[in-house]
Amino acid sequence: MQGEGSGFSMTRRDLLRMIGVSAGTAAMYQAMSTLGLAAESPYRGTPLLHGAPRGTSVLILGAGLAGMVAAYELRQAGYTVQVLEYNARPGGRNWTIRGGDRYTELGGDTQHCRFDHGQYINPGPWRIPYHHRGLLDYCKKLGVPLEPFVQVNHNAYLHNSHAFGGKPQRYRSINADYRGHIAELLAKVTQQGKLDAPVGKDDQATLLDSLRQWGALDKNYAYVRGPSASNRRGYDKPPGGGLSAKPVDSQPLQLHDVLDSHLWRGLTDSEMFEFQPVMFQPIGGMGRIGEAFGHALDGLIRYNAKVTAIHQDERGVTATYEDARHPGRARTAHGDWCICTIPLSILSQIPMNVSAAMTEAIGAIPYAATVKIGLQFKRRFWEEDEDIYGGITSTDLPINNISYPSSDFNSGGKGVLLGGYLWGLNAYQFTAMTPAERVRRAVQYGSQIHPQYASEFENGVAVAWHRVPFTLGCFAAWSDEARNKHYENLCQIDGRIALAGEHASYLPAWQEGAVTSALDVIGRIHQRVVGGAA
Amino acid sequence: MQGEGSGFSMTRRDLLRMIGVSAGTAAMYQAMSTLGLAAESPYRGTPLLHGAPRGTSVLILGAGLAGMVAAYELRQAGYTVQVLEYNARPGGRNWTIRGGDRYTELGGDTQHCRFDHGQYINPGPWRIPYHHRGLLDYCKKLGVPLEPFVQVNHNAYLHNSHAFGGKPQRYRSINADYRGHIAELLAKVTQQGKLDAPVGKDDQATLLDSLRQWGALDKNYAYVRGPSASNRRGYDKPPGGGLSAKPVDSQPLQLHDVLDSHLWRGLTDSEMFEFQPVMFQPIGGMGRIGEAFGHALDGLIRYNAKVTAIHQDERGVTATYEDARHPGRARTAHGDWCICTIPLSILSQIPMNVSAAMTEAIGAIPYAATVKIGLQFKRRFWEEDEDIYGGITSTDLPINNISYPSSDFNSGGKGVLLGGYLWGLNAYQFTAMTPAERVRRAVQYGSQIHPQYASEFENGVAVAWHRVPFTLGCFAAWSDEARNKHYENLCQIDGRIALAGEHASYLPAWQEGAVTSALDVIGRIHQRVVGGAA
Repeated sequence: MQGEGSGFSMTRRDLLRMIGVSAGTAAMYQAMSTLGLAAESPYRGTPLLHGAPRGTSVLILGAGLAGMVAAYELRQAGYTVQVLEYNARPGGRNWTIRGGDRYTELGGDTQHCRFDHGQYINPGPWRIPYHHRGLLDYCKKLGVPLEPFVQVNHNAYLHNSHAFGGKPQRYRSINADYRGHIAELLAKVTQQGKLDAPVGKDDQATLLDSLRQWGALDKNYAYVRGPSASNRRGYDKPPGGGLSAKPVDSQPLQLHDVLDSHLWRGLTDSEMFEFQPVMFQPIGGMGRIGEAFGHALDGLIRYNAKVTAIHQDERGVTATYEDARHPGRARTAHGDWCICTIPLSILSQIPMNVSAAMTEAIGAIPYAATVKIGLQFKRRFWEEDEDIYGGITSTDLPINNISYPSSDFNSGGKGVLLGGYLWGLNAYQFTAMTPAERVRRAVQYGSQIHPQYASEFENGVAVAWHRVPFTLGCFAAWSDEARNKHYENLCQIDGRIALAGEHASYLPAWQEGAVTSALDVIGRIHQRVVGGAA
Repeated sequence: MQGEGSGFSMTRRDLLRMIGVSAGTAAMYQAMSTLGLAAESPYRGTPLLHGAPRGTSVLILGAGLAGMVAAYELRQAGYTVQVLEYNARPGGRNWTIRGGDRYTELGGDTQHCRFDHGQYINPGPWRIPYHHRGLLDYCKKLGVPLEPFVQVNHNAYLHNSHAFGGKPQRYRSINADYRGHIAELLAKVTQQGKLDAPVGKDDQATLLDSLRQWGALDKNYAYVRGPSASNRRGYDKPPGGGLSAKPVDSQPLQLHDVLDSHLWRGLTDSEMFEFQPVMFQPIGGMGRIGEAFGHALDGLIRYNAKVTAIHQDERGVTATYEDARHPGRARTAHGDWCICTIPLSILSQIPMNVSAAMTEAIGAIPYAATVKIGLQFKRRFWEEDEDIYGGITSTDLPINNISYPSSDFNSGGKGVLLGGYLWGLNAYQFTAMTPAERVRRAVQYGSQIHPQYASEFENGVAVAWHRVPFTLGCFAAWSDEARNKHYENLCQIDGRIALAGEHASYLPAWQEGAVTSALDVIGRIHQRVVGGAA
């Protein structure tokens, strides 16, 4: 947790070291538990790589987060590092599209982003969970300021085009009504003595108390129109000031309507470990992290370098590459060791002499299809008309999500929505369209939720990850079966080559997977090196 | 919603007006519902005050939010406005204490805040719900930038010193385990056919599906150690990258332990309408709003003016006041009308000739005792050691809450916690202590949750609202009985005097109560004026 404490104050590591020295391991583990550490991130700060032999070189393929974390730490440890990167910029999937940017997808369609200054969309990762400590620590080290990413907003919508006449419902009403009704159901059977034996008398009394509070039930354990329910789901007329300020309660939906709408499916999105509040985003776009890494590694990264072959022998690893802008002339780069972070979707097409097991693993993992669409509007009507500040609306329409920007709240002016985040079949269908058509459809679908789209839409961009030249897909879509069969093989050091990236982690699609996989691999390579294998 | 739309785009009001003109009132109401308006805030923008007679004057007592909203709008409408304010600054309870500030409480104790530059505490209001649209609109008009206030953080603690050996529990574990167990209980009785008749067969099947997803149950509808539960409550070892990255599931707490701990009481704090995400805070402290209003009203506010008497006759209203810094010499200020926003706790001690009913109302409402304590620490150990970024820890200790700052996340360096937010008896006990003793106790209690307090604490400030000279209490603590008997009387225009403030609203303690009560009262006074009563 290097560089974390300020001045003379005690860091977590100092404290644990002190406890460990004075009271032994058991006390240290106890202290770790008390500090909430043992059950937290597997990340324990960057590995301490002592004693790198002078002049040992590592060739890193790919300047995404995994490659740049590896380069950053290995350089620090005294290794000679060189990075080859296909794009003209650092970051890989850590990428923000801003006004003025051009992007050409597979098939040749070029989009020229016409967003206003300060507006952006993150086609790749867009949010950071609070427990992705590796990534957060690099943000701190690199001086990338963060702001909260609003994942759950009780005033955003849950929308099913086949329920409630297609009218979107506020998250808060479905949330309150689902909870209220199930609390009432459970309270009733508890009162009727129908619960299973394991719940004792005292616990039953406490359970009833808790259900009343938790489900906003009335004194008879009923979920009904009244102040308790309104204080969760919202009012027909909320309380105000002066005369005529008295609130008017709202009428809860019936249990049948809530169940039948299937909108309860949207209630757990922000309950999952990776999506629980608090989440973060870098101010100005996720790409700020890749940009900061690129700056820190100035001079180490060769951009526009398209790797065409990787060959190792007992002395080292040679990558053959060409200039992506002027293909044809083969060049080479060499390292004593190689960390390859090229996505498996691309790597499976590049000749590389590793074991049959690793080769099979590389070819076995499909990449997920997703599409993200950014839409700029003349004004932030979601805030001005609908009191929605950040957060995500879920819908059964192909666009799947509408996400409202988590910055410049209440500022007036323009705004860019994530107008669609498509998965599975819908993503494949949108990938087959031209970018302009994807945008047109996203506007069309979104209008069913926000009629203001029609008059307020200005322009958009659409990234279909299966057409992104540097990844040919969004992330490694591991099945349990593939994981059992191939994961260990994929993560071995094969001779002088090792892989890193989100694909070499249990956190597919997450940047933390890339970061922790890189930290894991450099630790193991360093062990090999100092162990005498080099 | 004046000033809200940008350029030529259509505001909500424009849209509604157009629909109203072309399709009548029913269609307009339908459109309002569709836009989510009818069920939202009672605030409909500022009242349009046309035709104020030239030279009509309004004397406003108090430059808190209610007084300044009234002054801002009445000046705009053409009235001659003067404001008298007891403090040397605008804002009243909208107040931020920063390093270098001095504050003297009733009894004479002076605190000199030693926070570092950029650190602050809001002794009064500290968060703004997304639906407090009146206040949000003034923030927009006055150019006060906002950032999210993190109310719910799944990694903050729920703490009961009598449960789990006094060890704080993560919100996410109690939340997941309570949910999981009640979902399992309800699923069991549903499967056993023990539910009441009203739930039909199809609904029962959907209910089971929903409980499995919502409660993170396994395929047998059981809440047990496994990937589903861990993906809510957290892991013993979370997923990572590379080799040995496989996650290790955690063991849920037993239902009895969750119930018996009473920690479920902390699960609904952010489910209530006023506390649901998204909430906001002004960047740099809540006081930014009062400061911006004060700037906008430059020249209209007489500071250090302590009102000692208010007298009306058929021609107008005269307030007698003295310089709070140099008491003794009586001065007077006059208005054709008077809007008095002085807290009832103070106003009940000032002679004023209004009806017996209003006088009785003014004297009938007690003010709540609360205490807030700000503590500066050498480093942000809650972030660095415990992965807690913003949000609130609840405890049964007298400090009640520890709230982590919602700004400068992950930045390193120092930070100020809200180290206590005390209510009721605890607040009275702390009010009786010296400020230094309050701070000392808050550090002592907080150490039970964060042992780092001992080595990291630097300095603190403590505001006990019953000793705040300009309010003698935190807010009007209305009972239902008092509300029925006195509220209407309190809100009448009495001759040429009318009251405004959070105390004249159904939103006690909230700034929106002050804002909407002021807007309500100026509308009614204006009606009197143009109706010919003036």
